[in-house]
Amino acid sequence: MDDYGKPKEECAVFGVSLNTAEAAGIVYNGLLSLQHRGQEGSGIAVLSGSGGNISCIKSTGLASEVFSGGSLDRLPPGCTAIGHNRYSTTGSNIRENVQPFITEFLTGRIAIAHNGNITNAKQLRESLKQCGINFSATSDTEVVSSLIAYRCMKTGNVLSGILEAAPTICGAYSMVILGYDGRLFAMRDPCGFRPLCMGTGPHGTAFASESCALESCGFEFTRDIRPGEVVVAEKGVVTKQTFLDPPRCRGGLCIFEFVYFARPDSIIDGMSVYEARYNMGHILAQEYPVHADAVCGVPDSGIEAAIGYADESGLPLVSGFVKNRYIGRSFIYPVQSQRESAVRLKLNPLTANIKGRKIVLVDDSIVRGTTSRMIIGLLREAGAKEVHVRISSPPFRYPCNYGTDVDSVKSLIANKADMEGIRIKIGADSLGYISIEGLEKACQKCMVPFCTECFTGSSGEITRKNVLEE
Amino acid sequence: MDDYGKPKEECAVFGVSLNTAEAAGIVYNGLLSLQHRGQEGSGIAVLSGSGGNISCIKSTGLASEVFSGGSLDRLPPGCTAIGHNRYSTTGSNIRENVQPFITEFLTGRIAIAHNGNITNAKQLRESLKQCGINFSATSDTEVVSSLIAYRCMKTGNVLSGILEAAPTICGAYSMVILGYDGRLFAMRDPCGFRPLCMGTGPHGTAFASESCALESCGFEFTRDIRPGEVVVAEKGVVTKQTFLDPPRCRGGLCIFEFVYFARPDSIIDGMSVYEARYNMGHILAQEYPVHADAVCGVPDSGIEAAIGYADESGLPLVSGFVKNRYIGRSFIYPVQSQRESAVRLKLNPLTANIKGRKIVLVDDSIVRGTTSRMIIGLLREAGAKEVHVRISSPPFRYPCNYGTDVDSVKSLIANKADMEGIRIKIGADSLGYISIEGLEKACQKCMVPFCTECFTGSSGEITRKNVLEE
Amino acid sequence: MDDYGKPKEECAVFGVSLNTAEAAGIVYNGLLSLQHRGQEGSGIAVLSGSGGNISCIKSTGLASEVFSGGSLDRLPPGCTAIGHNRYSTTGSNIRENVQPFITEFLTGRIAIAHNGNITNAKQLRESLKQCGINFSATSDTEVVSSLIAYRCMKTGNVLSGILEAAPTICGAYSMVILGYDGRLFAMRDPCGFRPLCMGTGPHGTAFASESCALESCGFEFTRDIRPGEVVVAEKGVVTKQTFLDPPRCRGGLCIFEFVYFARPDSIIDGMSVYEARYNMGHILAQEYPVHADAVCGVPDSGIEAAIGYADESGLPLVSGFVKNRYIGRSFIYPVQSQRESAVRLKLNPLTANIKGRKIVLVDDSIVRGTTSRMIIGLLREAGAKEVHVRISSPPFRYPCNYGTDVDSVKSLIANKADMEGIRIKIGADSLGYISIEGLEKACQKCMVPFCTECFTGSSGEITRKNVLEE
Amino acid sequence: MDDYGKPKEECAVFGVSLNTAEAAGIVYNGLLSLQHRGQEGSGIAVLSGSGGNISCIKSTGLASEVFSGGSLDRLPPGCTAIGHNRYSTTGSNIRENVQPFITEFLTGRIAIAHNGNITNAKQLRESLKQCGINFSATSDTEVVSSLIAYRCMKTGNVLSGILEAAPTICGAYSMVILGYDGRLFAMRDPCGFRPLCMGTGPHGTAFASESCALESCGFEFTRDIRPGEVVVAEKGVVTKQTFLDPPRCRGGLCIFEFVYFARPDSIIDGMSVYEARYNMGHILAQEYPVHADAVCGVPDSGIEAAIGYADESGLPLVSGFVKNRYIGRSFIYPVQSQRESAVRLKLNPLTANIKGRKIVLVDDSIVRGTTSRMIIGLLREAGAKEVHVRISSPPFRYPCNYGTDVDSVKSLIANKADMEGIRIKIGADSLGYISIEGLEKACQKCMVPFCTECFTGSSGEITRKNVLEE
Repeated sequence: MDDYGKPKEECAVFGVSLNTAEAAGIVYNGLLSLQHRGQEGSGIAVLSGSGGNISCIKSTGLASEVFSGGSLDRLPPGCTAIGHNRYSTTGSNIRENVQPFITEFLTGRIAIAHNGNITNAKQLRESLKQCGINFSATSDTEVVSSLIAYRCMKTGNVLSGILEAAPTICGAYSMVILGYDGRLFAMRDPCGFRPLCMGTGPHGTAFASESCALESCGFEFTRDIRPGEVVVAEKGVVTKQTFLDPPRCRGGLCIFEFVYFARPDSIIDGMSVYEARYNMGHILAQEYPVHADAVCGVPDSGIEAAIGYADESGLPLVSGFVKNRYIGRSFIYPVQSQRESAVRLKLNPLTANIKGRKIVLVDDSIVRGTTSRMIIGLLREAGAKEVHVRISSPPFRYPCNYGTDVDSVKSLIANKADMEGIRIKIGADSLGYISIEGLEKACQKCMVPFCTECFTGSSGEITRKNVLEE
Repeated sequence: MDDYGKPKEECAVFGVSLNTAEAAGIVYNGLLSLQHRGQEGSGIAVLSGSGGNISCIKSTGLASEVFSGGSLDRLPPGCTAIGHNRYSTTGSNIRENVQPFITEFLTGRIAIAHNGNITNAKQLRESLKQCGINFSATSDTEVVSSLIAYRCMKTGNVLSGILEAAPTICGAYSMVILGYDGRLFAMRDPCGFRPLCMGTGPHGTAFASESCALESCGFEFTRDIRPGEVVVAEKGVVTKQTFLDPPRCRGGLCIFEFVYFARPDSIIDGMSVYEARYNMGHILAQEYPVHADAVCGVPDSGIEAAIGYADESGLPLVSGFVKNRYIGRSFIYPVQSQRESAVRLKLNPLTANIKGRKIVLVDDSIVRGTTSRMIIGLLREAGAKEVHVRISSPPFRYPCNYGTDVDSVKSLIANKADMEGIRIKIGADSLGYISIEGLEKACQKCMVPFCTECFTGSSGEITRKNVLEE
Repeated sequence: MDDYGKPKEECAVFGVSLNTAEAAGIVYNGLLSLQHRGQEGSGIAVLSGSGGNISCIKSTGLASEVFSGGSLDRLPPGCTAIGHNRYSTTGSNIRENVQPFITEFLTGRIAIAHNGNITNAKQLRESLKQCGINFSATSDTEVVSSLIAYRCMKTGNVLSGILEAAPTICGAYSMVILGYDGRLFAMRDPCGFRPLCMGTGPHGTAFASESCALESCGFEFTRDIRPGEVVVAEKGVVTKQTFLDPPRCRGGLCIFEFVYFARPDSIIDGMSVYEARYNMGHILAQEYPVHADAVCGVPDSGIEAAIGYADESGLPLVSGFVKNRYIGRSFIYPVQSQRESAVRLKLNPLTANIKGRKIVLVDDSIVRGTTSRMIIGLLREAGAKEVHVRISSPPFRYPCNYGTDVDSVKSLIANKADMEGIRIKIGADSLGYISIEGLEKACQKCMVPFCTECFTGSSGEITRKNVLEE
Repeated sequence: MDDYGKPKEECAVFGVSLNTAEAAGIVYNGLLSLQHRGQEGSGIAVLSGSGGNISCIKSTGLASEVFSGGSLDRLPPGCTAIGHNRYSTTGSNIRENVQPFITEFLTGRIAIAHNGNITNAKQLRESLKQCGINFSATSDTEVVSSLIAYRCMKTGNVLSGILEAAPTICGAYSMVILGYDGRLFAMRDPCGFRPLCMGTGPHGTAFASESCALESCGFEFTRDIRPGEVVVAEKGVVTKQTFLDPPRCRGGLCIFEFVYFARPDSIIDGMSVYEARYNMGHILAQEYPVHADAVCGVPDSGIEAAIGYADESGLPLVSGFVKNRYIGRSFIYPVQSQRESAVRLKLNPLTANIKGRKIVLVDDSIVRGTTSRMIIGLLREAGAKEVHVRISSPPFRYPCNYGTDVDSVKSLIANKADMEGIRIKIGADSLGYISIEGLEKACQKCMVPFCTECFTGSSGEITRKNVLEE
């Protein structure tokens, strides 16, 4: 629960094709439901009229802030729209990198919202510049948008453009694209690094990063977009499904989606996030049983695994902490002499549930170890006799190339100490990380292979076609 | 879980007497920890220097907003300070009613932060005006502050003033008072309607509406302020404890503190809030057993009772919903055609835990019934075979005179239908409210009698002394 | 034109009694027209209904900011209202000192807006505290408001209260008072330190600090409130005029109103401000003639005197500078190496009018001399052959007790150097300050004697009755 | 003085090449000095480091707002920078159209700030799209920036790119361009529609829309950029001057710069704006003499012409109005019943100077006539015996294609009535517009021919080369 060093996922996307003109409002609801995936910027682009006109409002801030004060009403009515929540703060010129990104080219306009990380963005940028394309911002998304626009122009067709552009893009991308032709496209990279799913409602079709957003907006979850799949919707109806070439790398769905990123009420590639976390706890209890009195999870992301641990171990589940929901990320602790106990303002132990007990504490990860040490300290102050830490992900030691923003490799505790060293540093009586096999087993209902590079470091990517190759 | 009609508690208070000059920073932390009791205004008053000077910063907004941008640093260093979070929006001139309230009088100054509701405020105001006292704002707190100031002046002593003023005040008050004499006073009305407790830390003494704030600020909970008790602290140390006359009414601690208001990690008058809620669930399971498959609570306040119900009934506890924490109170649903399903943006059911199951749904209260109906609808859409609603408070039918802001009596569902009528209206398969006896039993470790007027309507107040009676 | 050290006047007042319910809107217009007298806070209080209810909105900022976003519409309709613009930044708790100030007492409520400085405010405060009155803010206005309220209560009548309170108040006060009895009162201290006037319109009567506000709001200027006069209006009509005892001090109308504070389109006590400034220039030309080529004024306040100088001397008047109206008071000059020339961003010389010419530069005052030195430097850079400075006020050397906020006496250039020393310091070829006699002659149409203490230092105040003397 | 319908000029540009790294701070000062040319958006782009990196901060609002709160300090140090103030509100997506605009292309980056109007922007946009160029915003500036970038890439050199791009651009453009090669370019279209000048200071060279900004920032005005000229500066020094082909249209400097847009302390193409306006008044007095008592100008833009009229006619000049400087453009008049007199809040007549007099009122233009009618009404209420209106521009009847934003042609009073009709509508005793010849004579020191299309309607543009022609 190291907030600062914790892996950070970048972005959420949402798109709808309807037979009514309320697309922007629905997308707004979708963005609210996906706010947990990115809180630094938000935007909506709507296709209006019959001439392929695209209007866009986007800015830094939460969706509810960007679209407050009537700005949502300033978007024109339209049947097709996409939206985006942004996480990353990279780039000095944040405002220009907020999505959706619009590109106008010879034959029309497209708007794009993208979740992922393009590993060959620099090369694509250079290649496109060689083709005479200019750039006004600094983001990957402008590169992808320009690339697709370039291919659209060459082929005279948005879908063809997308299908020609895709094989030249390396890395992780789950994206929704608004075409001047009135069509909405959803595309997921061949490895399927980031989730993307679709749903059907009385007025049309929606695509979302997570299924929770479909349900919140009144759509019934239909299925996931498969890795390498491109789905086209028009006037509310899915009109085409097609596939990109199979992946030429060993990547897969980022397993951290199940460990930490996704909302527990989402189902990703056939696997319920809630159930995956529950299973992680279950397996942790098998891999690292311990004689204890009670199990508790670190809110919010350790809760479900704690339930699983409790059920498997037969130990009672207790609420160990109350989380203060009014303390935002920008909080600065005002009293110097008490900075050590700052974590207590965010998490206060429920003494009644802890006192005199041997506690199993379930959390999703340890990054630098500082916060874990403080949380364990709180339990001991609250009278815990023993604290046994169980972590629902393996130690991660390697950087992620596909959109997860981790601390520098050097600061990761798993690179600075062995298991016993970590245990001592965080002050636990025992420590158990789930095995990679255990983690994969917990998520085994998932129909897509996993990327576990951050645990193993093995990279298996195969280079893509050059953008200039025709 | 009817957010709008839900009973609303007014305010939190926090005060510290230290032997270091960091009082304002500590109070700020205390206010952060008590933000759940009031989010509409916040303020801190500090006693600085030796001349009884009191500085105050207060404004509308969350504590983190009021004290952002360096405004906390503009308060002078001081060893004694009090703070307040405000709930109510009554009064056209909100800004002037934000607390702490400062009164300067012939012999000095006091600042006061107050939680409760003075039932004879109008009469006190008139009496004080008869004594020549003027008013510049419209709140009860100005009345109490002026009354105490008046008595302080007459007696030449802050404590004497408080002790003489108290018998003339009717209703609910838990308050902290900063005196020009460098002393900090904590006072709770003889019925003890609202909680108030104290703690000790390395640098002094703190008083807080709830014990969770003491712990979050590095103080060890010592004990509750007893009903009718006045505690005095000076230079960090408690120097005096005294008692007001016994209550002349049948009031007691507001039992809704245990049902809904307080944070589960607080202990009020000897009773853990967490445990009380757990017990409520336990007793509900005895009073209203049902043949079902799983138990789930409505987040956040139904969760603990659901755990108790599950444990007593032997039914498995499941997470039934995921709550969207990014949707604030000011949210307006943008899509007209889907307004019915607006609640889904806030609460999305975890289908995997619900589908095909007979569910026991535990919530803390039903006010108008609208939200309950929508939540039950969500469960049915998620495939629940049956929904059995269990409520951890009796039906409330009467207005509260002691600081809880309920809807108009007419709009309360319990005044519009009988039990079966309510069940049908909210669409449940069965409905059970905990009995008053059951609720009291759940909280029986509480050493203070309860006020249950909102359930029973019986008022037992005895009139107080007139302010002018000497 | 030393912006920072320049004498600062405190506040504007405006009040209307109408036979329609648009009082608040009219007062808002009045405050806009008087914004030049105070830009730090603004407020409006309206009497609504028949029960003497007073509603008030006030906050820090310009009137257009305080009443933006529909907050003006939140004031209830009412026929009687008062408003205030505040200058001073004294007091740590600015927000509570913004006016109008409301006092509720035994028999009703009053609201007060006050321009001036009460020299015995501390004593009054102590006296009132002796009478049992409390205070919640730190301003003079609360003292005056409480004092009047106290007397209102004693006499049972607002007018009587005002008339009994007035003789105990020392110093400068021009105020408008809203009474619970539906009447509006305008009162000016017996010396008449600050201006106050009245006007009549189709729907009623208005009182304003300056006549320009009457005209801007559609009222015809009727006459000034005389020193020591109290005027009462009710339902739009003046119903009573009465006088306080004659002044017992040598004070009079602050002559700086004509030199600098007032808007040139105002007429104060029979004297047009425009004409007074014109006359000052006229007389300066007689007292300090010089052989030169052109006359120019420092915008904005030196312009009118420059016209007068030009007309009397026969020299042509030229525009010497263009003032940048987009640079506010909070401007910070970003380039260190050019800070010396910062004044140029505010005032740029019109080289065509200056080059090769001997210039007479007319300004209203010199405080610390820094800005004057920079302005003269600009003229020389623009090619002025000579710069002859003429100042339309005598050197001021003494602090003001009546509401003008001057720099510390020590920093005043006139206390640090003789005439030749000042001339050298500011870099002028010659320097002439108008004589006190000349200044008084320029304003001789004014029917009220002047206070010139800041030039002469002679104070002639006579102590008032004690507040407790009956 | 019809604020709403008044011709509106679009934008100001400023650029510096220095031998110190304070470029951003200097540009900020320049933008402050040019704020009168555009108040809706502001931005600064700085070239930093040796790799051609360009950083940019831009947003909607005044320069002082955009660069408040330390945002100026977030720009890196650099020797070369450009800035822009924006007027126009066209385009739904304002934020993306704020300048400077940055384009990155194959061989580097450029940033551009542009004042004017490209008449063939649509065609250029289409042509560029044909070349494969994409667009992400909707402004002319993106088109010009992309066009130049395209040519830069083709030629491998920024200057060559500019020189090749220019002949294909039609319309008005005065621009500053920041090149990745460290050079700063200033270019003015061959007709010279908009002003552009340069100055020298101790640390380098500056380019500005108006000379007033040079002086305010410590640069000495050197000369104007001639129509069709391109000037290159590098490391603070001008390194090259060259010329575009001669104009192939009958355009010229927009004469409204002298009438209304420019600050009076600027000198444009050899002609002092102050002097031009003075001359207009002079000539108006010759063309439309009248027997009257006094002359006054409508603040601010009629003041200088009034001085000229007074001098030529021998009539005394008086201040006729005081302008309220606290009423912004967004002001909404709150009192319905007095809306007619709303103008009085902005402009209050100085009765003393007007009463009983026959007044010559000098203004710069009449658009719809509404405001003129109100102002004349104010003079009559103030007692003017006669009001003779003199306008320092001819009636304008035609739209402007070069960056001046006028009302729809239909709403122009000069298209709805003849001279006598206008006189009657505005309520004047006589009315005189300066002749076109008179206006040109007043500005005859200007060394560039004028564009007077808005008066005459004759358009003489010759089509440019197609962008694709090599």
